Amino acid sequence: MKVNGTPYRSLWWDETAGALQIIDQRWLPHDFRIQQLDTLEDYAVAIVEMRVRGAPLIGATAAYGVAFAMSEDASDANLDKTWDHLHETRPTAINLRWALDRCRRALRAVPEAERAAFALQMAHEIADEDVEINRAIGRNGLEIIRQIAAKKPAGEPVRILTHCNAGWLATVDFGTATSPMYHAHDEGIPLHVWVDETRPRNQGALTSWELGSHGIPHTYIVDNAGGHLMQHGLVDMVIVGTDRTTRRGDVCNKIGTYLKALAAHDNGVPFYVALPSPTIDWTVDDGVAEIPIEERNAFETTHIQGVGDDGEIAWVRVSPEGTPGGNPAFDVTPNRLVTGLITERGVCAATPEGLAGLFPDMVQAAE
Amino acid sequence: MKVNGTPYRSLWWDETAGALQIIDQRWLPHDFRIQQLDTLEDYAVAIVEMRVRGAPLIGATAAYGVAFAMSEDASDANLDKTWDHLHETRPTAINLRWALDRCRRALRAVPEAERAAFALQMAHEIADEDVEINRAIGRNGLEIIRQIAAKKPAGEPVRILTHCNAGWLATVDFGTATSPMYHAHDEGIPLHVWVDETRPRNQGALTSWELGSHGIPHTYIVDNAGGHLMQHGLVDMVIVGTDRTTRRGDVCNKIGTYLKALAAHDNGVPFYVALPSPTIDWTVDDGVAEIPIEERNAFETTHIQGVGDDGEIAWVRVSPEGTPGGNPAFDVTPNRLVTGLITERGVCAATPEGLAGLFPDMVQAAE
Repeated sequence: MKVNGTPYRSLWWDETAGALQIIDQRWLPHDFRIQQLDTLEDYAVAIVEMRVRGAPLIGATAAYGVAFAMSEDASDANLDKTWDHLHETRPTAINLRWALDRCRRALRAVPEAERAAFALQMAHEIADEDVEINRAIGRNGLEIIRQIAAKKPAGEPVRILTHCNAGWLATVDFGTATSPMYHAHDEGIPLHVWVDETRPRNQGALTSWELGSHGIPHTYIVDNAGGHLMQHGLVDMVIVGTDRTTRRGDVCNKIGTYLKALAAHDNGVPFYVALPSPTIDWTVDDGVAEIPIEERNAFETTHIQGVGDDGEIAWVRVSPEGTPGGNPAFDVTPNRLVTGLITERGVCAATPEGLAGLFPDMVQAAE
Repeated sequence: MKVNGTPYRSLWWDETAGALQIIDQRWLPHDFRIQQLDTLEDYAVAIVEMRVRGAPLIGATAAYGVAFAMSEDASDANLDKTWDHLHETRPTAINLRWALDRCRRALRAVPEAERAAFALQMAHEIADEDVEINRAIGRNGLEIIRQIAAKKPAGEPVRILTHCNAGWLATVDFGTATSPMYHAHDEGIPLHVWVDETRPRNQGALTSWELGSHGIPHTYIVDNAGGHLMQHGLVDMVIVGTDRTTRRGDVCNKIGTYLKALAAHDNGVPFYVALPSPTIDWTVDDGVAEIPIEERNAFETTHIQGVGDDGEIAWVRVSPEGTPGGNPAFDVTPNRLVTGLITERGVCAATPEGLAGLFPDMVQAAE
């Protein structure tokens, strides 16, 4: 999407340099820094330190990492070594393993002399596929926004609340939850987006930066505010992303999503979840009972990152010294609170039948 | 309550200086600073800037403000001017209006020459009454905690979630929501308190500071986490305070309270509101429709205060430069989500009948 009028993806291959360029997201939203990855260790560090973040983007970065490794040494031994090296960066990231497995499986069938070119082509494909999936999510979500806009007085913005950053920065382009917004804005539908801050990591600041860079009106709010806004008719719809979706449509997303779903339900506000089909876990049914929730470092709760008066980026402690902090990173929104799932194949009910109707091939493959 | 072993109230009259002393709460939990109020503007600024905060404490501060004003000019004109000046500082705070009305009504019947002394005596009474009210709330809430503790295996803590700071810092002493906790802890009932951070102003840091100072085990969590904890059976009850309660039991409290009430309701967790009767607004029925919500400066949302590596207290900006922020300060929890109201006269249902049953005199006075 656009940054100050210039279109960007969250990563891109620089043909001249023969190297991958990433946006070092640790400095966003305060500073826009581009980094070139020149060694395999650069790739690993970029993932470990969350310079790149978001499941689809991590997967694509790893695929380019394999391509880089093949350009140096295309042996089977190096392929395995690279798989291990990149996999250990975020061992729980499902997309990372998926991308690495896909690359290794394909490359084993390719002669060593052709592997470097083949791997680079494959990385391009993985990145482009992500873009196309998100574009399709955008088009399908756009239809819902169009219908809401049609019921409002001409010129009045459709007011959308979102949580966390399921934006283009978390994917290769378009984002998932944000893709319908970008499509609607580019079509001329007036929008206003309520951006949840999303403590503890404040990914809402990334979403604000994205939306502001693309010219979409928005307001940054604390996570506590959304229920009040819905009570007063100031939210027309909610769109969020998801890290994992169960086969019956329970949604595991950033901590706090469940609270917004409850408020939407209590106030008759449509609550949509945008998701690429690779986030569906066909082996899980009851998300609350079955999905283990990652407990992250309490430091993220007791401290926060921002920019001081001196322009320097710093962490400050917000709680009393020594206070114990708790930091569950995700929660599960039961399907009964979800109005619809926006996927690359269309919009469906958050039910086993709804998902099976759109993805009969995947249901079969999982059985 | 105690600070480093020394008992404090949140304000006190210094006879030697002939002036009110407050704890400047803007620096808590990082720094404990006492301030003397020397002009009426000092009183107004203390309330506007939330150096003192919390409905009962604001009411008591305003009463001392009236006493100060009467010591300078005891005329009816100055009484009215003082009422206006102090009332406009926090228009949502029902206790503020209640204290100002009570002072003005009484003082009008007193000869000008006696007003200064009378007003000071009245401010002392209002402060002392608040302490006694909160002590009674604590005893009544203790009974509920005892019952929950009795159903748990011996030694297992009663896990209480609270939002914002309805602690002794928000009152003259004991607090409202915290008073049952202090009483239960002092009686030897094991507790564990989940403390909501409560963005934007992070009053949860004050609650953590209070509980830590008194020795009550607790965990500081982001506002997003409570729903997840309730889904997993980790919360036995919620106790929050309120800035204004309607005659049917709707509760206007710090922004985000409504979201926790929804989560409690969805998970069968008892949701109690502790309130001194002066926070009941007998003129209001439907809180969502009738209570205007204070919109505070967006700076509080886009920025946050904390302590840096250098030990200095600083504000940092968390959102992108120039991002518009929204900052509604309160929300209304409808009475259908409230299990019970803990008052100084006992615990009642959040219904018109429940409140009228405990406070028949006040209902009559309001009619």
